[in-house]
Amino acid sequence: MEKISEFTVRRLSNYFRILLELEKSGTPTVSSQRLAELGGITSAQVRKDLSYFGNFGTRGLGYSVSELKAAIMEILGLNHQWTMALFGAGSLGQALFYHQGFRDDGFFFRHVFDIDDKRVGGKWLDVEISHQRHAEEVLRRDPVAIAVIATPPAAAQDIADILVRAGTRGILNFAPTQLAVPEDVSLRNVNLAVALESLSFFLSQE
Amino acid sequence: MEKISEFTVRRLSNYFRILLELEKSGTPTVSSQRLAELGGITSAQVRKDLSYFGNFGTRGLGYSVSELKAAIMEILGLNHQWTMALFGAGSLGQALFYHQGFRDDGFFFRHVFDIDDKRVGGKWLDVEISHQRHAEEVLRRDPVAIAVIATPPAAAQDIADILVRAGTRGILNFAPTQLAVPEDVSLRNVNLAVALESLSFFLSQE
Repeated sequence: MEKISEFTVRRLSNYFRILLELEKSGTPTVSSQRLAELGGITSAQVRKDLSYFGNFGTRGLGYSVSELKAAIMEILGLNHQWTMALFGAGSLGQALFYHQGFRDDGFFFRHVFDIDDKRVGGKWLDVEISHQRHAEEVLRRDPVAIAVIATPPAAAQDIADILVRAGTRGILNFAPTQLAVPEDVSLRNVNLAVALESLSFFLSQE
Repeated sequence: MEKISEFTVRRLSNYFRILLELEKSGTPTVSSQRLAELGGITSAQVRKDLSYFGNFGTRGLGYSVSELKAAIMEILGLNHQWTMALFGAGSLGQALFYHQGFRDDGFFFRHVFDIDDKRVGGKWLDVEISHQRHAEEVLRRDPVAIAVIATPPAAAQDIADILVRAGTRGILNFAPTQLAVPEDVSLRNVNLAVALESLSFFLSQE
């Protein structure tokens, strides 16, 4: 398999979501043109992206929605469950913890950490909020695939260091700051302002 | 100016954030190579993106961080303030309302709407939470540039319809569902699971 870029993976996520909607609406097949329209990209790009993973299409009929969805789920690693730890039990942390879309995709929070004594000891579903000072020990004993950082920016690098020491391999960072981690740790930054900047760009053009 | 794609705009947001960090660390100039490294893209792509907007670079010296930042801010429409309305005063809505990154970029919430009588009448900073049934009237009287939808998916299309009737031109949708809006309304969907899917993809490759 050729090396797949971050941008390709994002487009695969996008196709996956479109295929979920098509499946819900009972659509059995979809052409690359239709996928392209729904995803807002060119049909050449769709064909190129899907060609990485073998031949799902039938000339004239397009792709089987359920087969393509299953194949993309497997490629994206969504065909099994992933465990996660959450750092930061504020309003963003809470929104992420209860976000149904994560559960639907097979991502489950197993631990929640915070440094605020008013939050520590509280319980979200069946997960107790623990003090961050225990995080390294807890994550060594009961490792998770992914840690989600939803703290103020000043706290984020210390948490990344804890995670590196504990051997956590995936980090999803919502704190608006650049984190330094070793090459073998996968880090994704989510900046909530980026989508707003895209809107302000397009609204400015009018 | 050539038509600029959504992907280009996203990369500009990315450059903007890198330039902010460089400025904070006191770096006066940056090469396209260095911008490319920090942004995780090719330097040819950086040069191409920036060439849309005229010539900011000096051969051998690279780009002035402050000039390039100011130019990108202007392109992205971040050189003035944008007013927003929030739909959904749950934990995600609260996290978005108080998100410092939005304020830093000049995005301010002026209205908050919800349908839950336990939330209506509450106050976040100086904004009172109003019942959604008044939204259309309020937004006609005091229009905003952008509405942010942070409700369950089943409620989102009704809200989009209210916004279209009220003449709101920009919608940022966090509800995991596809919304139908007329062509002259700019809609961006933020799917919080996409970044996790990218992590699970890369963690699956190991």
